[in-house]
This record gives sequence, C-alpha cells and structure tokens, in this order.
Amino acid sequence: MTKQQYRDQSYLEKVGKRIVTLREGLGISQEKLSELSGLDTRQIGRIERAENNSSISMVKKIADALKVKVSELVDVDF
Amino acid sequence: MTKQQYRDQSYLEKVGKRIVTLREGLGISQEKLSELSGLDTRQIGRIERAENNSSISMVKKIADALKVKVSELVDVDF
Repeated sequence: MTKQQYRDQSYLEKVGKRIVTLREGLGISQEKLSELSGLDTRQIGRIERAENNSSISMVKKIADALKVKVSELVDVDF
Repeated sequence: MTKQQYRDQSYLEKVGKRIVTLREGLGISQEKLSELSGLDTRQIGRIERAENNSSISMVKKIADALKVKVSELVDVDF
C-alpha cells in the first residue's frame, strides 16, 4: 500500500452518501451548501461522489454548514 | 477564503492532540502506530503536529489502528 496518499474509496463513498442524505434531508442544493460552507460547488459535488479524498478540515466545514457534528458525517461504519 | 484547499489549523491541532492522547494512553510509539496503521511514521508525526491537512481516509486508518471510532478523533469541539 503506497504510504503517501492513503485512500479508502469505500469509506469515502459512505461519507459522500451521508452528506447527500443530510443535505437533501434539509432540502438544500449543492449550491446552497456551497454558500453555507464557503466551499466551491464543484468541491461539494466531488466530495459527495467520493471523487475527492477530502481533508478533515473540509468535512468539518460541511458539518458546520449542515449544523451537525463531524461524527455524523464520518462515523458511517457503525 | 481560498476555495481550493480549505484548512482549519486550530481544528487540525485539536485532532492531532487527540491522536497523541489516545496513542500515549495505549502506551504505543509513533513507530508502532505506523506499523498498526500502515501509514508512514513521518506522516503520523505530521498529523499529530497538525502539519498535514489529513484526509479522512488517513484519519479512519489511524482510528482503526487505535481501535476507536473516527468520531473519537474528529469530534474535538464538543
């Protein structure tokens, strides 16, 4: 396993799906989440589609925008 | 705020400290955590010192190695 940029694709997909579920549960668009989080709409899309190996800073920013704890986005295996 | 690589330094420092606390609580070295997680010892050091804007894949890898939920590393504000 390369030690540089470790990536857990199945985990990223679960986190991405959790973000979509919470966002849609609030009835907000990716554009609105971008506005609330200050992240670019394309970044939001890539994170939701698990194309990005998101940093925890970004995930915290999304959690803050969705008004949830970071754990609600990242504890997806339990 | 630049939209490319968003970084929350104070958050990263809290997560880094939490990893040190849990690792030392288990009485294991950075080298041992590197062995358990498959991440490079230098990466472990950089994450603990908040020099890296760690990806959630890496944080999950560390959580798995420390046998804790990811939330125990990332819910540091609550």
